[in-house]
Amino acid sequence: MWLRISCDMTFDITIPTPFILMLRLRSGAQQWIASEKYSIKPMVPVFEFTDSYGNLCQRLIAPVGPFAIQTSVTVMIADQVDQQSGAPFVDIENLPEAVLSYLLPSRYCESDRFGDMAAEITAGQSLGYDQVKAIETWLRDTIRFEPSGSDELVSAAEVNVRQWGVCRDLSHLGIALCRSLSIPARLVEGYLYGLEPMTFHAWFEAYVGGRWYTFDATQAELKGGYVAIGYGRDAADVAIYNQFGPPVSPTYQSVCVELIDESDV
Amino acid sequence: MWLRISCDMTFDITIPTPFILMLRLRSGAQQWIASEKYSIKPMVPVFEFTDSYGNLCQRLIAPVGPFAIQTSVTVMIADQVDQQSGAPFVDIENLPEAVLSYLLPSRYCESDRFGDMAAEITAGQSLGYDQVKAIETWLRDTIRFEPSGSDELVSAAEVNVRQWGVCRDLSHLGIALCRSLSIPARLVEGYLYGLEPMTFHAWFEAYVGGRWYTFDATQAELKGGYVAIGYGRDAADVAIYNQFGPPVSPTYQSVCVELIDESDV
Amino acid sequence: MWLRISCDMTFDITIPTPFILMLRLRSGAQQWIASEKYSIKPMVPVFEFTDSYGNLCQRLIAPVGPFAIQTSVTVMIADQVDQQSGAPFVDIENLPEAVLSYLLPSRYCESDRFGDMAAEITAGQSLGYDQVKAIETWLRDTIRFEPSGSDELVSAAEVNVRQWGVCRDLSHLGIALCRSLSIPARLVEGYLYGLEPMTFHAWFEAYVGGRWYTFDATQAELKGGYVAIGYGRDAADVAIYNQFGPPVSPTYQSVCVELIDESDV
Amino acid sequence: MWLRISCDMTFDITIPTPFILMLRLRSGAQQWIASEKYSIKPMVPVFEFTDSYGNLCQRLIAPVGPFAIQTSVTVMIADQVDQQSGAPFVDIENLPEAVLSYLLPSRYCESDRFGDMAAEITAGQSLGYDQVKAIETWLRDTIRFEPSGSDELVSAAEVNVRQWGVCRDLSHLGIALCRSLSIPARLVEGYLYGLEPMTFHAWFEAYVGGRWYTFDATQAELKGGYVAIGYGRDAADVAIYNQFGPPVSPTYQSVCVELIDESDV
Repeated sequence: MWLRISCDMTFDITIPTPFILMLRLRSGAQQWIASEKYSIKPMVPVFEFTDSYGNLCQRLIAPVGPFAIQTSVTVMIADQVDQQSGAPFVDIENLPEAVLSYLLPSRYCESDRFGDMAAEITAGQSLGYDQVKAIETWLRDTIRFEPSGSDELVSAAEVNVRQWGVCRDLSHLGIALCRSLSIPARLVEGYLYGLEPMTFHAWFEAYVGGRWYTFDATQAELKGGYVAIGYGRDAADVAIYNQFGPPVSPTYQSVCVELIDESDV
Repeated sequence: MWLRISCDMTFDITIPTPFILMLRLRSGAQQWIASEKYSIKPMVPVFEFTDSYGNLCQRLIAPVGPFAIQTSVTVMIADQVDQQSGAPFVDIENLPEAVLSYLLPSRYCESDRFGDMAAEITAGQSLGYDQVKAIETWLRDTIRFEPSGSDELVSAAEVNVRQWGVCRDLSHLGIALCRSLSIPARLVEGYLYGLEPMTFHAWFEAYVGGRWYTFDATQAELKGGYVAIGYGRDAADVAIYNQFGPPVSPTYQSVCVELIDESDV
Repeated sequence: MWLRISCDMTFDITIPTPFILMLRLRSGAQQWIASEKYSIKPMVPVFEFTDSYGNLCQRLIAPVGPFAIQTSVTVMIADQVDQQSGAPFVDIENLPEAVLSYLLPSRYCESDRFGDMAAEITAGQSLGYDQVKAIETWLRDTIRFEPSGSDELVSAAEVNVRQWGVCRDLSHLGIALCRSLSIPARLVEGYLYGLEPMTFHAWFEAYVGGRWYTFDATQAELKGGYVAIGYGRDAADVAIYNQFGPPVSPTYQSVCVELIDESDV
Repeated sequence: MWLRISCDMTFDITIPTPFILMLRLRSGAQQWIASEKYSIKPMVPVFEFTDSYGNLCQRLIAPVGPFAIQTSVTVMIADQVDQQSGAPFVDIENLPEAVLSYLLPSRYCESDRFGDMAAEITAGQSLGYDQVKAIETWLRDTIRFEPSGSDELVSAAEVNVRQWGVCRDLSHLGIALCRSLSIPARLVEGYLYGLEPMTFHAWFEAYVGGRWYTFDATQAELKGGYVAIGYGRDAADVAIYNQFGPPVSPTYQSVCVELIDESDV
């Protein structure tokens, strides 16, 4: 399917503020970027680099005054998300090196504290994909999804205590549970076609059966329409923007995802 | 300055043919990609990766029949190319690690064979930028530039014998001469505003005074307008396309570079 | 100075247990490994890789029974640790790309929560080295160092509440405070000559004045003798060993660091 | 099997000379370094880094006078070299990204010029391992191996003309032939137990059936005993030492490889 996605953010800047943005999508195994537009107003020098997860990041100094970022992208993705019941657990000794860091605890995923709980949730499941599916189902049934919940970043342990969360929070808990079973798991920030209300989305991927698979506890079923902006161990690594100095928040933010015909590409 | 660049290539494919393309420009210290379009007809699965030089590469299988690639990009670059007479030579022990591989001989730059010649060309110059400038001047004065010369890839040593070459050939010889003086040098494939006749261009960069500087022996003077597609040790690393199996050549190829107003971005 | 360092660890393994060890030291700008021995008993297949921080990691499956690791190393380091009062803060836009990830909050360094506190601690200091020195002094004066304290991993915020910690804890708090001032900071695991009691040590580095400098709030003054095993954002990244499955602890552990003559190398 | 390997080199230095050495072996899938010694006389500052192929490189300035490097290593390797008749060709689209650069022509492997010849040599073979084996056999039968031949670096095309070569030359020709068939191939510099006369050795690896396999046209059959020092596209990438400035050669060089008992490790 072809999607056209646009994203607008405006900030009101009071002192020159360094930003690291992650708003340039990458073409990858799951998505092809056919066109892209990235507008910064007022225009300032931007330096782009690739972080250690392969994400394209833009570094700049936002000047005083209103500062607007607009991006749009035309992207082709598969109509379906791959799913594979029974995909086996990969032994630590057989994991690719690039995947190993996704086994470790990280800022918002205290995986070392979830061993017993993960064992209980996945009891009786085949090792691998089916365990992760059981975790996703457990999250959906247990942790209340509040799409318009707080923007405050909280960790998997905190989410598990308060029993509700935004998409990112459910993903963090899913990741922590996977890693406690020695299944590599990572956070994906991105867009989802048909999301209500439309905004940035976050889900998680687990590495089983020799590849990454998509999981999302916030949706009743896994349909197509996922477009990745960036990958990381958790939200500390993969932020739409990181900003340094006194905190600023967008005064305006809008995301739009629409289905288009191939002929309109 | 703002440029709008487009590139069209068509191939006539007789058996399914793997390609690795390098046609997705990166934003970097010298250029900002404000918008981009990348069209492949017929559409096939494409996998994009970053090579060890930081270039974005697209891997695909071209199917039988006409196969067309069209890209366009809107890019902002500096009005002037930085030049710095007197920028000093950087001792080997102080070079950044990422720069060291640009000291070694490579496929088309037999730098180990040019020591005496480079010493002669640069005699009396301050070590560093001024040496490279003397090499660029020597190339301009000595090696006949034939913009529509052969597409055959030849090495610096061969260019030095035959005394003429396309832009890539002059750059290869410049690179070999620099490296023989222990100055890191690399090839840049890209576009140049105002080039006559308009097509892909190649120039070289040398690392002196703690950064890369641009050199181009094919132009009378160094004006602004350089847009990089990719970087590498020589043309073996940085090809607009690499194609595997029986060779195919574009049946059609066109490059267009025009100056635009910021208001038209 | 030349040091001979040895490290012994024994585990009692009840089920085959995957390990990722970080016990192969790297030669670097600060240290030269002249000889090294790495013994694993019983011998099992080991696969070594470089993680994204440049550390050499060894992956293996420990078999059932006693499992012993012994390493020793002869290393040359500078007699003094470099210090540089007044080394200036580096603006975000001028930081090398490889340093940027050390600005972000991480598992044990919740830097986003320490902005006000860091501002207070460093009030009146020149931006850069002097700020970090003030943080180190504040840690030394404020957080009780308990070298034989708990092995439990706690975060900077928790350390700040309980007001005591092991070397790693003081470092985590120092790192969080630095990052909250937009100064990149990282954890170093390693050895320190003369440490009492002798065991593994941890300290931190901050990036100011264009390079990394060493800080250690657990010592009254900064003397020579620091040997790095690994670098990372915090203890989640840089562990002497990570072990998967039911937890096992060393039944025996010993570290020895002695000064030797160059003639004994 | 366990091997103890030592390597001595002495240079007579007349002006301070920058060197990049590649004499620190890496543990990897095929070998485990149990102990290692690396001595430089006189001792000078050394900076070690990892190149883009994963090799550990040592950068230093050799001072005027005799300059000696001695390394020794105790290494465990498999008793046999893996061989796998019938291991299939991997389609370009399925090759790991890290392998793709080994498809390109490089300094000493002009793979673009060997397509017809490779097709002829491998006619009738199954695609993949069997093709490479046919190339190895053809090299052994056709190109005269002169172990004490010239040190001059020549390319695959030149070797093919003169019909003789040192180990490195036969490997370069093998690599060029493989790549011309779209089989990734790379050069390995290292040691071989039992080599006569004993010195550094070079062989090549080809990527088929999803992994790298060893090939060596200089030996009658493929026995165990291969220890890798470094990997690269060809000898331009993987040099025991690169030296900058006026050329110097070792005044003394010695390599020793002996079989030891595990009890002597």
